[in-house]
Amino acid sequence: MESLISIGRKAKIASGELANYSTDKKNDVLKCIADTLLDEIDFILYENLRDLESANKEGKEKAFLDRLMLDEKRVNEIAEGLLEVAKLPDPIGKIESRIKRPNGLWIEKKTVPLGVIGIIYEARPNVTVDTSALCFKAGNAVILRGGSRAINSNKALVKVLKKGLEKEGIPSGAIQLIEDTKKDSAIKLMKMRDYIDLLIPRGGSSLIKTTVENSLIPVIETGVGNCHVFVDESAKLEMAKKIVINAKTSRVSVCNAAETFLIADSIAPKYLPIILSGLEELGVEIRGCKKVIELFPKYMLATEEDWHTEYLDYIISVKIVNDIDEAIEHINKYGTKHSEAIVTEDQKNARKFSQEIDAAAVYINASTRFTDGFEFGLGAEIGISTQKLHARGPMGLEELTSYKYVVYGDGQIR
Amino acid sequence: MESLISIGRKAKIASGELANYSTDKKNDVLKCIADTLLDEIDFILYENLRDLESANKEGKEKAFLDRLMLDEKRVNEIAEGLLEVAKLPDPIGKIESRIKRPNGLWIEKKTVPLGVIGIIYEARPNVTVDTSALCFKAGNAVILRGGSRAINSNKALVKVLKKGLEKEGIPSGAIQLIEDTKKDSAIKLMKMRDYIDLLIPRGGSSLIKTTVENSLIPVIETGVGNCHVFVDESAKLEMAKKIVINAKTSRVSVCNAAETFLIADSIAPKYLPIILSGLEELGVEIRGCKKVIELFPKYMLATEEDWHTEYLDYIISVKIVNDIDEAIEHINKYGTKHSEAIVTEDQKNARKFSQEIDAAAVYINASTRFTDGFEFGLGAEIGISTQKLHARGPMGLEELTSYKYVVYGDGQIR
Repeated sequence: MESLISIGRKAKIASGELANYSTDKKNDVLKCIADTLLDEIDFILYENLRDLESANKEGKEKAFLDRLMLDEKRVNEIAEGLLEVAKLPDPIGKIESRIKRPNGLWIEKKTVPLGVIGIIYEARPNVTVDTSALCFKAGNAVILRGGSRAINSNKALVKVLKKGLEKEGIPSGAIQLIEDTKKDSAIKLMKMRDYIDLLIPRGGSSLIKTTVENSLIPVIETGVGNCHVFVDESAKLEMAKKIVINAKTSRVSVCNAAETFLIADSIAPKYLPIILSGLEELGVEIRGCKKVIELFPKYMLATEEDWHTEYLDYIISVKIVNDIDEAIEHINKYGTKHSEAIVTEDQKNARKFSQEIDAAAVYINASTRFTDGFEFGLGAEIGISTQKLHARGPMGLEELTSYKYVVYGDGQIR
Repeated sequence: MESLISIGRKAKIASGELANYSTDKKNDVLKCIADTLLDEIDFILYENLRDLESANKEGKEKAFLDRLMLDEKRVNEIAEGLLEVAKLPDPIGKIESRIKRPNGLWIEKKTVPLGVIGIIYEARPNVTVDTSALCFKAGNAVILRGGSRAINSNKALVKVLKKGLEKEGIPSGAIQLIEDTKKDSAIKLMKMRDYIDLLIPRGGSSLIKTTVENSLIPVIETGVGNCHVFVDESAKLEMAKKIVINAKTSRVSVCNAAETFLIADSIAPKYLPIILSGLEELGVEIRGCKKVIELFPKYMLATEEDWHTEYLDYIISVKIVNDIDEAIEHINKYGTKHSEAIVTEDQKNARKFSQEIDAAAVYINASTRFTDGFEFGLGAEIGISTQKLHARGPMGLEELTSYKYVVYGDGQIR
C-alpha cells in the first residue's frame, strides 16, 4: 500500500497544476469522468456487491446497507451529478476587489483554490465521487479516506475516476484514496500539515470530535444538527403543525431534521394535542418536559440528555417555555448552531429570534429541512458547516476556495 | 485569580449582547475608552515602568524593551487608534446576498460577529488595546493572554478599558485579560472549545506551532514570513536594487521583510555586485548559494537551514537560479505563504509568477513590505494570516466576522 506521505506529496504537486487549469479543461475532465463511470458500471457494481455482502454478514442495519448500496440507477445519478458540477460557474480566478492605493499600487483580491483537501467520511460510495468532483472543479486536489465497509466500492470508483483523469492527461495525484482504513491511518492523515490545507470530516459527532482533537490541519466541522422548532404564541396552528411535522419526520436521519419542539406556554393547551397527535400518527415517540407531562401524563419525561441529543430517529423532545426569551436561551444552550426555526406572526419576535439565535441558518415560518446546498441555490454541497470560521451552513464550490492578493507596482518601496 | 472557565463563560454571555449593539453604541464606547485611557495615563505609565524595570534586570535586549515600552506619546497614539477604529465602517449586519428561491423562500446572507476571540501574544502592551478595539467593533468579545513580561502593563490597560466599558454599561466580559501568564494557562485556553470561537496567536513560529498542536479551537496562523524577492532577467537594475534593499532593510524585524533574494543566472554577474554592495553598505550579512560563492568567494555559503530561516535580522540569503521556474520552485518549497515579489519587465513572467506562487500576497515590481492592513486600505490590522482558510494576508475588521443565513418563509416545508 502506498504511504500517506507519498500520497500527500503527489496531491501537493497535482494541486499546483490544477490551480491553473482553465474552466473548459476542468469541465471536459468532469464529462470524461462521467462517461468512464458509465462505461465501467459493471465493475463498480461488482465491487460494491462485495462490500454489501460483507456488511450483510456482519449484520449491519438496513439504513447502513442502503447508504452503502449502489445500483444502475444510483451510478447514473452520480454520473449525472458530475455533469451538473461541470455546468456550475467556475469559482476560481474571480476578482473580488481591485483598488488603487495613493502610492499607485494596484491591489487585486482574486479567488484561488485552497490546495489539497482531505475528506474523512463513512461508508457512502456516492460521497467518493461527489466530493472529488467538487474539489476538482474548485481546483483542489483531494485525498479521500472513506469508511472501511465501502473499501472495495471506493477502490473501484477511484480507479475509474483516475482512468478518466489519465485520458485527459491530469496528474493522478488530483484524486487519491487512502486504502488503509484502520483508524490509525485517519489519525496520521490529520497530522499531515505540510501536504493538506483543509480537512473536512463528514459523519457523526464522534468522527468530528476525533478530528478536532487530533488534527493539526485546519478543520471544518460539519453536519451535527440538534435543530429546534419554536412555536411562538402568535403562530398559526396549521402552519405550526405542518412545519413541526415536516422538520421532524420528512427524513429523520439527516442533520437538518428537528430534534426538539418548543412551544409558548399560553398556546400549549390548545396547540399541543393537535401537533403531538399528528407526530404520533407518524410513529414519533414524544418525550416532554415537566409541564408537558403535567398536561399529558402518558408521555415519557425528557432528561437533560434528551435536550442534548440529535436523535436522527422518530423521537422528539418537547418543551413548554414561558416566552421567546426562554426559547432562545434553550436553543443557544443545547443547539449545535445548525438550523433553528420559529413559527410566528409577530414581526418583532421574528426579528429577535433571527438576531439572537446563534446558528448557521435561522428560519422564520419555514422548516429546518431546507438547510442544504441545492435548496440554497449553491448547485452543490460538500457538507454543512456548523462552525463560524471560513464557511457557515451549506458549503458549495465557493466555500472550497481561498484568495490571494496580487499587487502590481512600478517600483514602489515602503 | 479568576478561573479560565469563569472568564470563558463571561465572554460567551457578553458576546451575545455585543452582537446586537448598534454602530453608534459601539463607536461611543470606543471613544469613551479612548478618553479613559488618556485620563489614566499616569497609572498606565507607572505600571508599565514596573514591567520595564523587571525586564531590564533580566537583561532583555533593546528591541524587546522597545516593544514593551509605553510613554505619553505612545499612549496618545493608542488612544488615537481607538478613534480611528470608531471611524471605520461597521462590518456587522451587512447583507452579502439576498435571493428568492422558486418555492418562495427568501434567503438572506448576513454578516455576524465570530463570537468570542482569544488572542495569545507577546509582551507588547499596544496589542492589548488595538486588538480589543477591533474585536469590539466587530461585535466580538475578546480574551487576551499577553506575555508575562508585560503583565503589569496589561493589567493596568485592561482595568482602564473595563472602566470605559462600565461607564457605557457594557458587560465586563466583553474584554478580559488572563492574568495567569504561565504556559499552562495558554494551553488550557486552547482547549476551551465551548467558549471560544477563534484563536489568533500573534508571535513567533514557536508560539504558532504550540497553538496549532494544542488547540481544539479553530486557529488562524499569523505572521511567520520567510519572504523572497526574485529578480528576473528582464528586471531593471535600479528598480531591482531599490526593491531588494527596501524589502530587506527598511525594517528587519517584521514578518513582511525579505529573507532571501533570488536572481536569474544571466544577469547575476552584472547585477549582483551592485545590489550586494548596496546591502553590505547597510550592514547586511550575505550568505550565498554555491554559484554566488563562485562569483564572490568572500561570502559565507548558505546552508539548507538558511533557506528555511526567517532571520528577522540584517542577514540575507542569496541564490542564483536558472530561470523563473527554479525561482518559483524554490519559493513554493521554502516560503511560508506570506509575501513574495518578482522584479520583471516581462509580462508573461509576471503573470506566471502571480499564478504559480502560493502566497497571501504576490508583488510585481514592488517591495514585500506592503503586506499590512493599513497599506492594503483595510484601515486596521489584527494580524497577517498565512493560512488559506477564512482569511489570507492582512486581516482587518471584515476578517473578524462570520455570517448567518436568515430564511423567510410563509409556511414552506420540504
